[in-house]
Amino acid sequence: MSPDPDRFLSDLHHLRSFGAEGAGVMRRAFSGPDIAAREWLVARIGEIGLTPHVDPAGNVFGLTDGPSLLIGSHSDTQPEGGWLDGAYGVIAGLEIARTAAGSGGPSISLVSFQDEEGRFGALTGSDLWAGRTTLAEADRYTDTDGASFADARHGLSHLMQEDFVDPGRFTGFLEAHIEQGPVLDASAEGVGVVTSIVGLRQLQITVTGQQNHAGTTPMHMRRDAFQGAARVATLLNERFTNIVTPQSVWTIGHIRLHPNASSIVPGRAIFTIQWRDGETDRLDRMERIIEDVLTEVARETGLRIDAGRLRNDLAPVPMDEGIQAALRAAADRHAQGRWRTMPSGALHDASNVSHLMPVGMLFVPSIGGISHSFDEDTAEADLVLGLRVLADAAEALAPS
Amino acid sequence: MSPDPDRFLSDLHHLRSFGAEGAGVMRRAFSGPDIAAREWLVARIGEIGLTPHVDPAGNVFGLTDGPSLLIGSHSDTQPEGGWLDGAYGVIAGLEIARTAAGSGGPSISLVSFQDEEGRFGALTGSDLWAGRTTLAEADRYTDTDGASFADARHGLSHLMQEDFVDPGRFTGFLEAHIEQGPVLDASAEGVGVVTSIVGLRQLQITVTGQQNHAGTTPMHMRRDAFQGAARVATLLNERFTNIVTPQSVWTIGHIRLHPNASSIVPGRAIFTIQWRDGETDRLDRMERIIEDVLTEVARETGLRIDAGRLRNDLAPVPMDEGIQAALRAAADRHAQGRWRTMPSGALHDASNVSHLMPVGMLFVPSIGGISHSFDEDTAEADLVLGLRVLADAAEALAPS
Repeated sequence: MSPDPDRFLSDLHHLRSFGAEGAGVMRRAFSGPDIAAREWLVARIGEIGLTPHVDPAGNVFGLTDGPSLLIGSHSDTQPEGGWLDGAYGVIAGLEIARTAAGSGGPSISLVSFQDEEGRFGALTGSDLWAGRTTLAEADRYTDTDGASFADARHGLSHLMQEDFVDPGRFTGFLEAHIEQGPVLDASAEGVGVVTSIVGLRQLQITVTGQQNHAGTTPMHMRRDAFQGAARVATLLNERFTNIVTPQSVWTIGHIRLHPNASSIVPGRAIFTIQWRDGETDRLDRMERIIEDVLTEVARETGLRIDAGRLRNDLAPVPMDEGIQAALRAAADRHAQGRWRTMPSGALHDASNVSHLMPVGMLFVPSIGGISHSFDEDTAEADLVLGLRVLADAAEALAPS
Repeated sequence: MSPDPDRFLSDLHHLRSFGAEGAGVMRRAFSGPDIAAREWLVARIGEIGLTPHVDPAGNVFGLTDGPSLLIGSHSDTQPEGGWLDGAYGVIAGLEIARTAAGSGGPSISLVSFQDEEGRFGALTGSDLWAGRTTLAEADRYTDTDGASFADARHGLSHLMQEDFVDPGRFTGFLEAHIEQGPVLDASAEGVGVVTSIVGLRQLQITVTGQQNHAGTTPMHMRRDAFQGAARVATLLNERFTNIVTPQSVWTIGHIRLHPNASSIVPGRAIFTIQWRDGETDRLDRMERIIEDVLTEVARETGLRIDAGRLRNDLAPVPMDEGIQAALRAAADRHAQGRWRTMPSGALHDASNVSHLMPVGMLFVPSIGGISHSFDEDTAEADLVLGLRVLADAAEALAPS
């Protein structure tokens, strides 16, 4: 299969025009530009001889008859989004399905999921398709302005069908996406074959000390909650080094002191520790180290330290081995020495779809690691390289 | 001179009744209870044969004829204040002046300064008396509700005189106050002779890194502003140990991260470092260590770190040697082995008055180190001990 780079780039730029804002895009789920973009995609699907199916969540499918490999991503954006993000994977799916349909090639369907970026939920469209939430629940989701998912999805009712597509008709799912991180760009590599979507855990830590006058309280009599938080942060860095891989990450991104005044010894510090890794076992070991560090700092300082698991834990999602092998072979063919295997540190629709069928993902570089920003971009040569790798893998994987 | 403990405690509890709220007091400068308390004090001053003088700032003096030693503090409180705080020093002054006047003893005047607690400015009354601000400037001060000092001081206009008291009539100033810290209480000591009011410096630190996705950015490519702040905090503790004394203190009491979200590597951290010491030289050396640590962390991490001095620097104010000697001798007489010399970590009116005449301060314990709280308290025996020590020192120091 030889996809057409010019036709592909032309469609990618056409999709960019829906909600274009400078170099970026504002195309939130079910906004005017999003609905127009989905209408446009439905028309393209018809043109290439596939059957459009817009399900009750607003997911747009282009279906072949009989079993097929599914390729796609999402075309909704953040309030201020980049022009590629999931759009890249949707148009890659369109071009490969078109190439296959036009050449009597393998059976390839395509999809553009809805509300991946979480105007209402988070990955709402693929969540609904995978049965991880119900339409009744999702209809109660509201955006930050109070608009409901139930009302918003009426905007596509003229195209919507009442049923969801049967996942049993697909033999697997391929998702191409920009990396949204700096790894490929920094190493001048063209594509990344994703090994897993990392799992995520998060603890909210409350350090309780003694609020005191910052002038009259001698150092040795203080129980300073910020000093406890700083000690935890530095000790974690030391203790993690023995067990993490270069793909493990941990972040203290949020902290709140009480009373947060320069002349008062902080009596309380509340902060989050978030950590991500591709392996459940390593997530467990990191959690035990965190617990040990908290216990040690509490004993050392006389502070009370409480930790509560936040509800948004995510288990790691390994990519299908057969799909990874096909992607690796295709990457070697088109970009020998210029690709790598890597985990996805961000969440994707493929995570939900993995509950329905084998899935795989391919990354192209994000220049400067920038995403969710008008400045997001990828070199044209890498966009085309990713398309070719994906097409080769699809040819190897799809039912004929 | 033998002050009368019962009369003293009775007056102290009477003053407590103005603005009483549970065990505490709400008596902000120029509030109804504050004005009533000052009217009451003016009446007491007349009763003991001294001349009342309420100056344009609302400071209440009780004056002897001719040269005298001045004793006092302030009787305004925080919005939710303790019953002792400066009130202790005002009533100690009243009792000692009364004892002296009644026994033909030495010449002792008394004072209750106004707005020490900063409803409008900070130490506004003694600031004005010491000429460190002008009435025209102070009249433009407003409280958090927008009320002006100019309007507020009209509440005492029925008692006010147009001129300030000539500081030249006083040979020195003695201020008794609760410690507002835990040192005397923790060591079961009855009084503390203050050696100096510590100086204070404050830097606002801005750490600038790179805001990034907490999932897709590998650890080795991060420039995490919070990690920089935590490193500064822990390194400062190490580096200070070689040069500080048990009286030196430093505090990171305020921090703000941007964007302060658990899934985003912080791109910016703004925090304050405040440090206090009784000696200018040590304040300087601590500042050089802070500068070195900031440079070192910036180099080590690739973060940009900027530091700006905040405007509220205070130079250390040493207490007069002769007054300290008199207080030490009196403490030895009344509380041998149960007193200490110590710096004042908090600011006091004596700091302003030191620009006009020799000053000295005496502390009594704060139970649990608690102050600026309804729970503030001091054992009655210690209140009386402090009165006796102060009276003895006053007798030694005051003109006969």
